[in-house]
Amino acid sequence: MQNFTFHNPTKIVFGKGQIAAIAQEIPADARVLVTYGAGSIKRNGVYGAVMAALPGRAVGAFGGIEPNPKYETLMRAVEKIRAEGWDYLLAVGGGSVLDGTKFIAAAVPFTGGDPWDIVAKGAEVKSAVPIGAVLTLPATGSESNAFAVISRESCGDKLAFSTPLVFPKFAVLDPEATFSLPPRQVANGVVDAFAHTLEQYLTFPAAAPLQDRFAEGILLTLIEVGPGTLADPTDYEARAAFMWTATLALNGLIGCGVPQDWVTHMIGHEITAMHGLDHAQTLAVVFPAVMDARRGPKRDKLLQYGERVWGIRSGSEDERIDAAIARTREFFSSLGVKTRFSEYGIGADVREKVAERFEKRGWRKLGERGDVGPKEASEILAYSL
Amino acid sequence: MQNFTFHNPTKIVFGKGQIAAIAQEIPADARVLVTYGAGSIKRNGVYGAVMAALPGRAVGAFGGIEPNPKYETLMRAVEKIRAEGWDYLLAVGGGSVLDGTKFIAAAVPFTGGDPWDIVAKGAEVKSAVPIGAVLTLPATGSESNAFAVISRESCGDKLAFSTPLVFPKFAVLDPEATFSLPPRQVANGVVDAFAHTLEQYLTFPAAAPLQDRFAEGILLTLIEVGPGTLADPTDYEARAAFMWTATLALNGLIGCGVPQDWVTHMIGHEITAMHGLDHAQTLAVVFPAVMDARRGPKRDKLLQYGERVWGIRSGSEDERIDAAIARTREFFSSLGVKTRFSEYGIGADVREKVAERFEKRGWRKLGERGDVGPKEASEILAYSL
Repeated sequence: MQNFTFHNPTKIVFGKGQIAAIAQEIPADARVLVTYGAGSIKRNGVYGAVMAALPGRAVGAFGGIEPNPKYETLMRAVEKIRAEGWDYLLAVGGGSVLDGTKFIAAAVPFTGGDPWDIVAKGAEVKSAVPIGAVLTLPATGSESNAFAVISRESCGDKLAFSTPLVFPKFAVLDPEATFSLPPRQVANGVVDAFAHTLEQYLTFPAAAPLQDRFAEGILLTLIEVGPGTLADPTDYEARAAFMWTATLALNGLIGCGVPQDWVTHMIGHEITAMHGLDHAQTLAVVFPAVMDARRGPKRDKLLQYGERVWGIRSGSEDERIDAAIARTREFFSSLGVKTRFSEYGIGADVREKVAERFEKRGWRKLGERGDVGPKEASEILAYSL
Repeated sequence: MQNFTFHNPTKIVFGKGQIAAIAQEIPADARVLVTYGAGSIKRNGVYGAVMAALPGRAVGAFGGIEPNPKYETLMRAVEKIRAEGWDYLLAVGGGSVLDGTKFIAAAVPFTGGDPWDIVAKGAEVKSAVPIGAVLTLPATGSESNAFAVISRESCGDKLAFSTPLVFPKFAVLDPEATFSLPPRQVANGVVDAFAHTLEQYLTFPAAAPLQDRFAEGILLTLIEVGPGTLADPTDYEARAAFMWTATLALNGLIGCGVPQDWVTHMIGHEITAMHGLDHAQTLAVVFPAVMDARRGPKRDKLLQYGERVWGIRSGSEDERIDAAIARTREFFSSLGVKTRFSEYGIGADVREKVAERFEKRGWRKLGERGDVGPKEASEILAYSL
């Protein structure tokens, strides 16, 4: 096991009716700016429940944070906060609202020039506005981690940043607040959580048996409850199990002391930036291709994944790996998420385009062994067409 | 799944050489009192590493915290701290040192009378001295939870208390700091972590599939690495896996949203108070008895435990439960921990004595269904003789 530090200070408040608990979690004298997306929270009652929990408080709102939240949009919030003096952000939404709010939180007090440098150049974040969260879409884990992914329209980039300063202070996870999600977002959420787990698990053995068991437990649970919660969105127990599982898939725990990959995500972000596919749509196409192209370096864990997650115990090693990849594709397909670029009308030129972007960013040492660059990304994408 | 709140603010610093990290974790101006046990840390180099990490700091020491830490001993530390003005506690040791230090931390600023009331009467703890930890014995999980169990010699009681104020701020887990542990303590640690997991898992189904998988993952890992780390104490990887697993067994995570039992612990504490058995020795005797006596109310989870943890799939339900209990006893025995009171020379009168203590404490509604009192405790112990 590698040395590690694990510190996740986010307080999780989970269950039915828990939106009311925000009253205890947000300081009474805070000036609270509620951040949200396209407005579905105003139709499904979540916005009303939030406002009902904060009577007499100083509360404002900033809506319109889009999927793959854009720097341009977020900077409007930054200007509003600087002008009006809001000092607490309450993100009400899914991963995009959360990620966008994290950028806003870091950008408001940023004095080192253009806040885009936080994302593009890793400029140091010295402070951030405190964040609370009411999660409405189980998927990204952003509600209890320190990561955010931000896009910029003007340059077509989609890039990540991380600082412990943007851990939400608390996150309310009420499964009922997610009942009205469209099926596509639920299916995407299952794929996203599955892929987050694979990025931290499907690498090489690292003498971390508990982390392996936990990762396999997450994958098995997603397989167990994913199709059911998609089919019956108001089944409380299935949705609750999915919601908690998606949080644990990326709260830092299963990544403790183990190598991590994240090549699928890096490629996927470029695809979203170029072609506009949903984040999870890119993952469902790229991850099976990574498994196939990287079956050499990932061999031991692919065999373990096949056996423990899918019960594959017979055949040669390559047959078992083929079967594990096939079962992964079938699982994503069963959720209605495509696993080939051709199904989206994207051709073989995606290989070269992604390689060029890797080249431009100087990405030559990605993946758990630091051996994935432009050429390897192109090789991976040969299995994704 | 039941509603729950999960908030574990302890920062874990894990791995070789990490004792040096306490320099960054403890405020530079803190007046640090190091608390420890019988002095093994002075022989194995851990005390030296701690002191080497804090050059020029104000550091004192209070040793002699015994297994099953005693109120009488701990109050001497409280008086020392009040007299000398120490304002940060660094617990260096195992669960007893940690639990004792938590009591000290809560007792120092306690103004509501005798601090024993915190334990005996649930008196409110309004503040506590901050605690850091250097763990030398993987077992109790006390390094990242809010619980402590304290004994009082004068009345022969062993009782628990809990407050979020005593969560350690940080805990250093260096597997090498545990290499010199005697085998009995390592074996006890494996049993303790196994029992902690069962208390939160072996109840009744609660639509919490991920918590089940995580609990099973902990049990499987303890079975996988427990005997090896006992046989070869300097095998870093096995010890590291065991150490991290023992922490996760009782940091609050697997207990989120599920019913919990803890009857085995409540009975075990009385046995330790009366007969002086090690904590884990009592658990290894009582837990198989709880499984046997409570096979009705625990039936579904006993079958799941047998199948997923021990691979028991054939036979009638009762045959499978018998097999699961037998495998549990065999596992504890394989670690050198006895599973019958007769092996300790304790006779059948233990049943009545424990029942009397339950009666005295008014414990009539223990266990995951709130249906265990003096009579049921006696019935359980019939299977432990």
